[in-house]
Amino acid sequence: MIGSLFAGHLGRVCEVSVLCRRDEHARALNEHGLRVSGRHDYVTRVRAATDPAELPEPELAIVATKTTELDAAAARLAGHWDAAAVMTVQNGLGAEEAFAGRPVLSAVTFMSGTRHSDTHVEYILDTETWLGPYGETPYDLAEEVAATIVASGLKARAFADLRPAQWSKLIFNATVNAVAALTGLPHDPHFAAREHPGDLGRLVFDLVEEGKRVAEAAGVELHEDPWEMNVLATHRGSRHYPSMLEDVDAHRPTEIEHITGALVREATRLGVPVPLHTALYRLVRGKEASWQPD
Amino acid sequence: MIGSLFAGHLGRVCEVSVLCRRDEHARALNEHGLRVSGRHDYVTRVRAATDPAELPEPELAIVATKTTELDAAAARLAGHWDAAAVMTVQNGLGAEEAFAGRPVLSAVTFMSGTRHSDTHVEYILDTETWLGPYGETPYDLAEEVAATIVASGLKARAFADLRPAQWSKLIFNATVNAVAALTGLPHDPHFAAREHPGDLGRLVFDLVEEGKRVAEAAGVELHEDPWEMNVLATHRGSRHYPSMLEDVDAHRPTEIEHITGALVREATRLGVPVPLHTALYRLVRGKEASWQPD
Repeated sequence: MIGSLFAGHLGRVCEVSVLCRRDEHARALNEHGLRVSGRHDYVTRVRAATDPAELPEPELAIVATKTTELDAAAARLAGHWDAAAVMTVQNGLGAEEAFAGRPVLSAVTFMSGTRHSDTHVEYILDTETWLGPYGETPYDLAEEVAATIVASGLKARAFADLRPAQWSKLIFNATVNAVAALTGLPHDPHFAAREHPGDLGRLVFDLVEEGKRVAEAAGVELHEDPWEMNVLATHRGSRHYPSMLEDVDAHRPTEIEHITGALVREATRLGVPVPLHTALYRLVRGKEASWQPD
Repeated sequence: MIGSLFAGHLGRVCEVSVLCRRDEHARALNEHGLRVSGRHDYVTRVRAATDPAELPEPELAIVATKTTELDAAAARLAGHWDAAAVMTVQNGLGAEEAFAGRPVLSAVTFMSGTRHSDTHVEYILDTETWLGPYGETPYDLAEEVAATIVASGLKARAFADLRPAQWSKLIFNATVNAVAALTGLPHDPHFAAREHPGDLGRLVFDLVEEGKRVAEAAGVELHEDPWEMNVLATHRGSRHYPSMLEDVDAHRPTEIEHITGALVREATRLGVPVPLHTALYRLVRGKEASWQPD
């Protein structure tokens, strides 16, 4: 869905190719183009294939798969498009490492939409994508890419150091996704309720506090307070349905390893106790096990 | 189900009345009796009604409702059968307090079965019921009741102090029920697995440790180690389906307040931190909220 939003918009200001997993997806895109509806409304011509060799080498490859498909995506790019920079747009931490040896931009996005079909995506939440250079990648590239995204009609912002934003979103995501996955609640006002000793907002608050202690030990000054992000989101009344809860409903593998798992491993490395995130990590893994055959 | 197992067996050695909630249940029992199948097989005559005034005053009233229906049961007995002792057979802590002013026996049971209809219960797991005097109740009464239960064909054991057994079961129940309710797993080998840092058995172990610290602060020396109870049960290969998971599947209120909630409140009173049980308490309450209308 994020990949389609980028392709559908960027195709208006530059040449866009789409590397698909399925042949019929590539065929449909080549035949019909990619329709964007919602906040914008048009059809963008794109060139699509399932083999990178059939597509022209791009300047930038945007990798916006779920983390559970990241390794497969990296394997398909291996040996192709050697000069292309890669922009990773994933939840969690560590996606950049799958593209070692290339110039890499890290990105987190807050935009969202709904994928209606192989050739139709609806643009719903028009919030920003934040990006920054990873490793030796020059900051200029982040600025250039952010400017191109903005020119295409989406919102973006370049940061010299993305980690403060990335960590804010990591702590927010680790907390909200795991709590939603375990309770079955969308991101609703229960996540901010703290009156009764048994209110869920107290757990959410404590999870955020644990996450902040890890960020501090990692030397990261957070861009936004994840607790405030949480309260604001629940008060918007949108009852956002977190992607991990969608995965649980569909009995799909979740992104728990790359979100909460990544946070717990960072905490262990830094010697910061995170008993609550660790508990949620184990519970969501248990939940995944519940729909595995014995 | 527990109440039916008691009635179906005790009716063979003494006069048994059944106080029902529903008229058709009472009518069916009066007409057909109560069938026990499984480990035993016979039909027991019982006298049933929905109003205690229509039943002879018993020497002992066995209250084996779920904790979520305990207050309603106590309200229906109020003003009736003033000389009768009460035996409470509930998960959690504190059921005895609903019957202040009467002689009370505390009991925990490990037997189980399946309720097939209003007049048919299957006796499956023939494990013991443990009982002991509560407050000023004399121990002799516990011994007498245990002997009667044994004479009826069930297994029972009287304790001068039930708390060591009650707390062992409380810690076991608080841990296994909440973890099962949140993960969707029956009580299977995942609950004892501790190899990987994300393995669920590690959380189960830590939950049991928290519970033991509360018991210790309460001056209770546990009758059995809840971790060993857990490992034994998962190795029996029975994949027991905890009642709280059944409640979650059916979108019914769970016993979380009387099990984990009771443990968390005792811990608070005693000044013992129980962050993991508190987290599970809030998550299960959140899960209950997920099937409430807004």
